[in-house]
Amino acid sequence: MLFEVFLSTPAMEAVFSPAAVVQSMMDVEAALVRAQSKAGLMPASAAQAISSLCRAELYDVPSLLAAAPAAGSLAMPTVQRLRETVALFDPAASVYVHRNACAQDIVDTAMVLCTRQALRILDDDLQALCGQLLDLARRHQAVPMLGRTLMQPAQVISLRYKVMNWLMPLVRSAEMLRSHAREALRLQLGGPVGTLESLGTNADPVSRLLSEDLGLPVSEMCWHTQRDRWIRLATELGVLCGSMSKLAQDLALLAQPEVDEIVEAPTDGRGSCIALPHKHNPIAAQQALAATLRAPHRVAALMCCMNQAHERGLGQWPAELAEWSSLMGATHGALIALRRAMGAPDVRTAKMRANVDAQLGLVGSERLELLLTPRLGRQRTDAIVQELIRRVRQGQGSLMQMVRQALEEGELPETAISMRELSDLFDVVSIAAWADSRVEQSLQQAGQRLELLAGQPFV
Amino acid sequence: MLFEVFLSTPAMEAVFSPAAVVQSMMDVEAALVRAQSKAGLMPASAAQAISSLCRAELYDVPSLLAAAPAAGSLAMPTVQRLRETVALFDPAASVYVHRNACAQDIVDTAMVLCTRQALRILDDDLQALCGQLLDLARRHQAVPMLGRTLMQPAQVISLRYKVMNWLMPLVRSAEMLRSHAREALRLQLGGPVGTLESLGTNADPVSRLLSEDLGLPVSEMCWHTQRDRWIRLATELGVLCGSMSKLAQDLALLAQPEVDEIVEAPTDGRGSCIALPHKHNPIAAQQALAATLRAPHRVAALMCCMNQAHERGLGQWPAELAEWSSLMGATHGALIALRRAMGAPDVRTAKMRANVDAQLGLVGSERLELLLTPRLGRQRTDAIVQELIRRVRQGQGSLMQMVRQALEEGELPETAISMRELSDLFDVVSIAAWADSRVEQSLQQAGQRLELLAGQPFV
Amino acid sequence: MLFEVFLSTPAMEAVFSPAAVVQSMMDVEAALVRAQSKAGLMPASAAQAISSLCRAELYDVPSLLAAAPAAGSLAMPTVQRLRETVALFDPAASVYVHRNACAQDIVDTAMVLCTRQALRILDDDLQALCGQLLDLARRHQAVPMLGRTLMQPAQVISLRYKVMNWLMPLVRSAEMLRSHAREALRLQLGGPVGTLESLGTNADPVSRLLSEDLGLPVSEMCWHTQRDRWIRLATELGVLCGSMSKLAQDLALLAQPEVDEIVEAPTDGRGSCIALPHKHNPIAAQQALAATLRAPHRVAALMCCMNQAHERGLGQWPAELAEWSSLMGATHGALIALRRAMGAPDVRTAKMRANVDAQLGLVGSERLELLLTPRLGRQRTDAIVQELIRRVRQGQGSLMQMVRQALEEGELPETAISMRELSDLFDVVSIAAWADSRVEQSLQQAGQRLELLAGQPFV
Amino acid sequence: MLFEVFLSTPAMEAVFSPAAVVQSMMDVEAALVRAQSKAGLMPASAAQAISSLCRAELYDVPSLLAAAPAAGSLAMPTVQRLRETVALFDPAASVYVHRNACAQDIVDTAMVLCTRQALRILDDDLQALCGQLLDLARRHQAVPMLGRTLMQPAQVISLRYKVMNWLMPLVRSAEMLRSHAREALRLQLGGPVGTLESLGTNADPVSRLLSEDLGLPVSEMCWHTQRDRWIRLATELGVLCGSMSKLAQDLALLAQPEVDEIVEAPTDGRGSCIALPHKHNPIAAQQALAATLRAPHRVAALMCCMNQAHERGLGQWPAELAEWSSLMGATHGALIALRRAMGAPDVRTAKMRANVDAQLGLVGSERLELLLTPRLGRQRTDAIVQELIRRVRQGQGSLMQMVRQALEEGELPETAISMRELSDLFDVVSIAAWADSRVEQSLQQAGQRLELLAGQPFV
Repeated sequence: MLFEVFLSTPAMEAVFSPAAVVQSMMDVEAALVRAQSKAGLMPASAAQAISSLCRAELYDVPSLLAAAPAAGSLAMPTVQRLRETVALFDPAASVYVHRNACAQDIVDTAMVLCTRQALRILDDDLQALCGQLLDLARRHQAVPMLGRTLMQPAQVISLRYKVMNWLMPLVRSAEMLRSHAREALRLQLGGPVGTLESLGTNADPVSRLLSEDLGLPVSEMCWHTQRDRWIRLATELGVLCGSMSKLAQDLALLAQPEVDEIVEAPTDGRGSCIALPHKHNPIAAQQALAATLRAPHRVAALMCCMNQAHERGLGQWPAELAEWSSLMGATHGALIALRRAMGAPDVRTAKMRANVDAQLGLVGSERLELLLTPRLGRQRTDAIVQELIRRVRQGQGSLMQMVRQALEEGELPETAISMRELSDLFDVVSIAAWADSRVEQSLQQAGQRLELLAGQPFV
Repeated sequence: MLFEVFLSTPAMEAVFSPAAVVQSMMDVEAALVRAQSKAGLMPASAAQAISSLCRAELYDVPSLLAAAPAAGSLAMPTVQRLRETVALFDPAASVYVHRNACAQDIVDTAMVLCTRQALRILDDDLQALCGQLLDLARRHQAVPMLGRTLMQPAQVISLRYKVMNWLMPLVRSAEMLRSHAREALRLQLGGPVGTLESLGTNADPVSRLLSEDLGLPVSEMCWHTQRDRWIRLATELGVLCGSMSKLAQDLALLAQPEVDEIVEAPTDGRGSCIALPHKHNPIAAQQALAATLRAPHRVAALMCCMNQAHERGLGQWPAELAEWSSLMGATHGALIALRRAMGAPDVRTAKMRANVDAQLGLVGSERLELLLTPRLGRQRTDAIVQELIRRVRQGQGSLMQMVRQALEEGELPETAISMRELSDLFDVVSIAAWADSRVEQSLQQAGQRLELLAGQPFV
Repeated sequence: MLFEVFLSTPAMEAVFSPAAVVQSMMDVEAALVRAQSKAGLMPASAAQAISSLCRAELYDVPSLLAAAPAAGSLAMPTVQRLRETVALFDPAASVYVHRNACAQDIVDTAMVLCTRQALRILDDDLQALCGQLLDLARRHQAVPMLGRTLMQPAQVISLRYKVMNWLMPLVRSAEMLRSHAREALRLQLGGPVGTLESLGTNADPVSRLLSEDLGLPVSEMCWHTQRDRWIRLATELGVLCGSMSKLAQDLALLAQPEVDEIVEAPTDGRGSCIALPHKHNPIAAQQALAATLRAPHRVAALMCCMNQAHERGLGQWPAELAEWSSLMGATHGALIALRRAMGAPDVRTAKMRANVDAQLGLVGSERLELLLTPRLGRQRTDAIVQELIRRVRQGQGSLMQMVRQALEEGELPETAISMRELSDLFDVVSIAAWADSRVEQSLQQAGQRLELLAGQPFV
Repeated sequence: MLFEVFLSTPAMEAVFSPAAVVQSMMDVEAALVRAQSKAGLMPASAAQAISSLCRAELYDVPSLLAAAPAAGSLAMPTVQRLRETVALFDPAASVYVHRNACAQDIVDTAMVLCTRQALRILDDDLQALCGQLLDLARRHQAVPMLGRTLMQPAQVISLRYKVMNWLMPLVRSAEMLRSHAREALRLQLGGPVGTLESLGTNADPVSRLLSEDLGLPVSEMCWHTQRDRWIRLATELGVLCGSMSKLAQDLALLAQPEVDEIVEAPTDGRGSCIALPHKHNPIAAQQALAATLRAPHRVAALMCCMNQAHERGLGQWPAELAEWSSLMGATHGALIALRRAMGAPDVRTAKMRANVDAQLGLVGSERLELLLTPRLGRQRTDAIVQELIRRVRQGQGSLMQMVRQALEEGELPETAISMRELSDLFDVVSIAAWADSRVEQSLQQAGQRLELLAGQPFV
C-alpha cells in the first residue's frame, strides 16, 4: 500500500508488479507445454498455440487479480483465462494448458523467476554500495576519529577502520546471498501432492526439459512444503538489513550537528523540510532505517509460515507469498538509500579530529593505565589516573598536560612514564594509523572478493 | 504488493489508496486554512481559494508519490503542488497554504481520517460476523459435539457452547476497538516540534476550530512521539486477529473429511481446485488464516516504531506508516473471509453426533471416575476404569456396555453406580443441554451488547 | 536463563520463581477443596486435610519441575504428589484432591495470582517513575532546550515540555494496565473442556465460592481458549515498553558528551567500565533499552499463541506460559532502570541553553519565515531567508544579527519586521515559557491522575 | 524462568547455566594470560597464578550475578573478584588479570565456547532424529497414504514419500548449521574499540596464541558490532525450528483419532491426563510445537539487535545475549521431543490404507480427468467427471465403480478408458510405489550425507 511503497523502490515494485508476476506465471505455463511437447506428451502445435498466447498483455490483469481471492489462488483464474483464450484459437490445444501441474507449481516457479530478477538487482546495488564504502576506506588514511561505545567516547579509531566495520558484513552478505540463491532458486514441479504421479515415467524428462527452458535447477524433491531453502534466502536478506541498519544508524548519529562528522550530501532538495528552512535532514539514513526496521518482522512472519500441514498447508503459503516481496522491497529500499547517502557524503575529517581533541586526551586513559599499572601497581595507578581524570574534567587541561604536571610536581615518579611514552600515548595520528593497519588485510580481501563477485554472473 | 492485496479487501485497499490518502491530506489542509481564517489569521478569501483547490483529482497523484521518497515525506510534494496551484489562481493566498503546520500534522491527521473510515468498515463487518455466530448459536440447541483438547477427544460439549467460545472474544474486541478508537482518533497539530509556537495565543482556538471541522477531538498534547494511543489501537487489531485465527483454525479442523462437522458452503466456484476436480477446499478459512498470520508481526513492527528519538525519530515514523494499513487490510481480509465462511456453513449435526458415538463413551470416562472414586477409593477406581477403557479399545463394546457388564458380572459392586446414574452418564443430549446452559447468560449478554453496538455510532 | 535475568529484576524473578508458582498452584488447589466443601461436595475434614498440605515447602519443587515436561504439564506431577501426601495422612481425603478441575484451571489461575502480584509491583514502580518525571517537570520552568526532529535541531522547546512528552504515555499506561488487569485477572475454572459438567448444578456455587476465596472475579465463560483479555494485558505491557524505550533512547542521546544535556547519576560504581577509566556509561538507559527491545517480540509470540485448536490447543498454551513471565520481567527491568536513571539525573540546563545558542538562531528560521511571508510574499521570503541562513552557516553571525544587518543595509524593508518582533523571535526564554504553557494542563492532569491512582488499590 | 525451562532441556540449561558461563569466561581469562605470557607480555608466573584461579567453583556465582546488572555487564564483577582473589595469592600478578581485553571480548568468547558445546549437542540429536526418520522411511515400502492439501485429501502418496518430505530439510539444516558454525564460532578479541591498540605489535601474536589455546579461529576483524555471522547462525536455528514445527504439526494431525495414522508411543505415563483417564495426548508433538513456536520471535529480536551504534551499541548487546540461549534451548527442546515422538511411533499402515479407501477413489479424480480430457475434450470430460463425483458423494459406490457403470451404460464410450487403464488408475499400491520411486534418490543421498556428517567432527 501507499506508505509501504515509499520504503521500497520502483525497480522492486516493477519486478513484483501484478503484470510481471502474471507474465512470469505465463512464462512457466509456456515452458511447461514446450517441455511436455518435447517429451512427446502433447502435439507440438498445441504447445505452440498455447505458448504464443502466454503473454500477459493479452489479458486483463486487474480482473485476474479481482478473481483470485475467491478462487483461493491467482493461478486458477489465470489458467482458466488462458484455457479459454487458447480454446478460441485452437480448441484441441486447450486441454493441454497447465496439464500435469498444480497451482503451486506455477506460482512458486513464477516467484522464483521474479525473485531471481530481484536478487540480481539487489546484488548489483549491494556490490555498488560495497564499492562506495571501499573507496571511502581507501581514500582516507590515518584519519583519527572517536571510537564510541555505549554512546560514549571510548578510544581513538580511524575513519578507515570504521568504514571497514560497515563494509565487511555487507561483503559477506553479498557472497551468502549468491550461495543461498543458488540453493533456493529452483524449479517447482510436483503436481497436486508433489509426486508428479500423472506424468509417470515422463516426470523426470519433463522436469529436466522445463528446468533447461527456464534456467532453473531441478530440486531432488519438489519443495511445496520443504520451504527451508526458500526461507533461508529470506533470512539472509534479514541479516543484510541488520547490517545496513547499523550503518544507517551510525550515519544518523554522525550527522547530528553536535557531532557533525559525516553528513549526507543534499541533492535535489533532499533533506530540506517544509516548515523549517534551516534544516538539513538525513533523508537517506531515514529511508534506510525505516526500511530495515521492517525486515526482522518479515523474516519472523516467513518463519511462522513454514509450519505447513501435510502436503500443502492452509494459509501459510498465501501468507508467505504476501510477506515475500515486501522483504525484497525493503531491502532494496535501504540499499538505494545507502547508495545515495554514500554517493557523495560530506566527510568532515577536521571535525572528527576536533571531536577527538575535545576529549582532552581522556580517551587515552586506558593506555595510560595499562602503562602505569605494572610499574605502580593497580591501586596506586587507579588512584592517580582517577585523580588526573578529575582534573581534566575540572578544566585544568588535557590528560597529557595533567600527566606532565604530575611528573613535574613529583606526584608521579619519573620512572612511571617517559616523555616519549607520554607523547606516543596521545599521538592520535599514530593511533589512527594503527587502527588502519588492523584493517589492512580486510581492505585487500574485500577488494578481491568484490572483484570476484563482479566477475561472476549472479546465478 | 500483489499477494498482499489478496489477503486484504477492495474496501480496505480503497480506504488507503494513494488517491484517498492524498485526498485526506487535502481535507486536512483545507480544514487548516478554514480554521485559521475563522481565527482571523488569514483572509477568508485565501482560505476559500485554497480549500477549493484541495481536491485530489486536480493533481497527478502518481507524480506526487514518485516525488515523496526523495523528499522524505508525501507531505512535501503535496504541499508544494498545492501551493503552486493556489499561486496560479490567487498568488496572495498561496502563502497561507500549510501555514503553521508540519508534515507530520498533515499526514498523521490524514491517516486518522482514513483509519476512522477503515475502522467503521471493520466495525460493521465485525458486528455482522458476530451476528452470524449469534444466530448459529441460537439456532442449535443441545447439539452434542466432541470437545477436543490437545487435538484429542476429551468430553462432550455442545455446538452452541463451541460457537459462544468463538463469539465472546469477538464481541469484546468490537467494544474495545471502539474504546481505543475514541482515544486514538485525534487531531494531530503541533507544528515542527509539537508546541504550535508560531500560532502563539491562537494555538488553542485554531486547534479547536480544526477539531470541529474534522470531527476529531483535540489531544491534550500533540502526539508526534506519544504513539501509545495509536499503537494500542493496532494491538487490539492484533488481538482480534488472534481470536479470528482461532475460529478459522477450528473451521479448518472441523472441515477435514475425517471429521466433517462444519463445512464451508461452496459458492461461486470457491473451494474447487484447478487440478483436482473432487476437492472442496476451505478457501475462506485459508484466507482468514493467512491474513491473521501476518498480524502479530505487524504489531511487533509497530511497537518497534515507538522508540522515536527526541521530538520526531528518524525512520520509525515512515516505518509505522508503512505497517499500518497492511494490518488494517489483513484484519478486514480475515473478517470478510469469516463472514463468507459463516454465511451459510454446512453444519452437520448428525456427523457431530456420529463422531461422539464413535468414541464409544470413552469421553465419559472422567465422569465415571469422579462418580466411582468416593465410593471405591482412588486405587480401585483407577484400576477398574483403566480396565474398562482397555476393553472398549479392544472392541468389546462401548464404555457404558462395559460398565453394565462389569456390574452384571460382579466386577463392580451394585453400590458403585445405579442404572439411573449410568444412563445419565452417557446421555449425550443431556450433556449438550448442560453445555448450552453454561452459555445461556453469555448468549443473552452477547445479544444485548451487539444491539448496543448497533445502536451507537462508531466514533 | 543467565543473561535474560539481567534484564529482569529480583522482584519479578521471585514472583515467577518455581517455588512461587507451585505455591500459587497449591493455593488454588486449597481454595478449590474449601469451595467444594462449603458447597457440600466433600467433607470439611477432607478439605481441611488437603488444604493444610497445600504448602510448597513440603514438596521437592525441583523434582516436580523435572517431571513436568514428560507429563505435559506442571499440574500433573504437582497434583500427584499432593494426592500421595494427602493419602499418607488422610487416605479418604485424597480422592478429593483436584476434583472436578483440570490442569489448565490450576495453572492458569495460579498464573493469574502471580501476575496480579507482578502487576502490583509494576504499578507501584510505574507510579514512582511517573512521580519522578512529574517532579522533574515541575522543578524546571521555562528552561530552553533544543527540540530535535529526525536527529536534527528543529526549534526551541522547554525541558518541561520534553519531560511531559515522556510522562503522559506512562500515565495512560498506568491507567490502562489497571483497566486491563481488572478484565484479565479472573478465575479459570472449567474442567476438561470448560463446561464444568462434572459439577452439575454446583458449578456456579463452587465457582462463586472459589472466586471469593481467591479474590478473583468469575469469568462469564471459562477462558481456556478465549485468551483475548489475557493477551490484551500483555499488549499493554508492550505499549508501556515502547514508551519507556523512547524515554531511554532520549536519555542515551542526551547523555552523549557532544550533547551533554541530561546525564545519569553515577552511583555504586555504575557507569564505569573495566577497561576505560574515564568512561561514564549510561547503564540505566542501556538496561532499559535492552529490556524493552525484547517486548515487541514477546507480544508477537503471545499473539501467535492465540490460535488454539478446539477446546485447548496443542503447543500454544505451553508456549504462552513460557513467554509470559519474561515480558513481565523485561517490563519491570526497564522500569527499575528508568527509576534509577531518573533518581538523581544531572540535568544540565546551562548546556541545554548553550546548545540552543550554538544554533545561532537557525532554529528560529520557521518563525522568521512565517512572519515575513505575508509581508514579502513567498518567493522573496524564501530567497532572503535562505540567504540569511547561508550567512549564518558561513560564520558571519547569528540569524538575528543577519536579520538586523539586512534591515540596516536595506536588503530587508523596515516594514518586514520590527525590532520588537525581531527580539521576540529569538527570545528563547519566552519560547521555552510558551512551550511550558502548552503542557500546563497536562501537568495538572497528570498530577491529579497519579494521585487518583495512588489513592485506589490496584485490582 | 519456570515455564520457559519446560520447553528447553536439562542439557541446554546446563550449557548456559550461570556456573557454566562464568567458567567459560574464566577459561577465556586464563587463556588470555597464557597467550600474553607466551608473547612475553607478562611473567609466566603471573599467568600461572591467574589461570590456576580461573575456576568458577572458587567464586560465589550468585553474588557475581547479583552484581552484574548495576555494573552493566557480568564481566565487571567477575574480573574484579578474580583480580581480588589473585591479589590475595600473588599481588604482582593481579595487574595482569584481563589486561588488554574488554568486557565484550570475554563475554562474547565465552558465549562462543558455550554455543559450540550447545551446537555439538544439537548436532548429535539432529543427526539422531534424521537417523530415525531415515529408518522409518526405509522400513516402509509402497505404503499408500492420503496426500492432503489445504487440510483436504488430494491424492495418494506413500508413507516413505511423506517421511522423506520431513527428513530432507532436516538434513540440509544439519549441514548448514555446521557451515554457519565454522563461520560464527570465532575468537572475539578487540579491546575497548576493537583495534587492540594497547597490544600494539603484539596484537596479532596474542590473538593467534589465544586462538590456538581455545581452539577458535581468529576473525579478520573483531566482530563487536559485525554480528552478521553470529546472527546467521541463529537464523539457521530458526529455519530448523520451522522444519521441525511442520513435522510436529503433521504428527498432531495424524494422531487425531478420526485420522489415526501415526500415534506417539505412550511411555512413562506420557500422554495421559489428570482429569481424563481415556486420553492419550501427543505430548511430544505438543512440546515440539510449543518450543518451535517461539523461534521466529527470537530470531526477529536478534535481528533487531544488529542495529548497534558505533563501536558498541547501547542495549542491543545485552538484549542479544538474553535472547541467544533461549533460542538454543527451544531448538533442543523441540529436537528431543521429536526424537521421543519418532522413537517408537505407532505407525498404523492399515488405517492409512483405510483412510485412502474411505475416499472411494475420489482422490484419483485428477488422473481420470487427465486421461479423459484428450479423448473427450475438456467440456465433456468436466461434465462426466463432475457427475461421477456427485454419484460417489451420494453413496452410489466408488469412483471406479461409477466409471465402470458409466462404461456399461454407455454414458462413457468404450474408447474413453480401457479396463486396464481403469484398474491402474485406482491401484493405490502402485501409486504408493510410484511415490516411493520419486524419493529413491533422496533416500540414498540422505543416507550418504548423514554418514558423512557422522564421520566428521562438528567444528
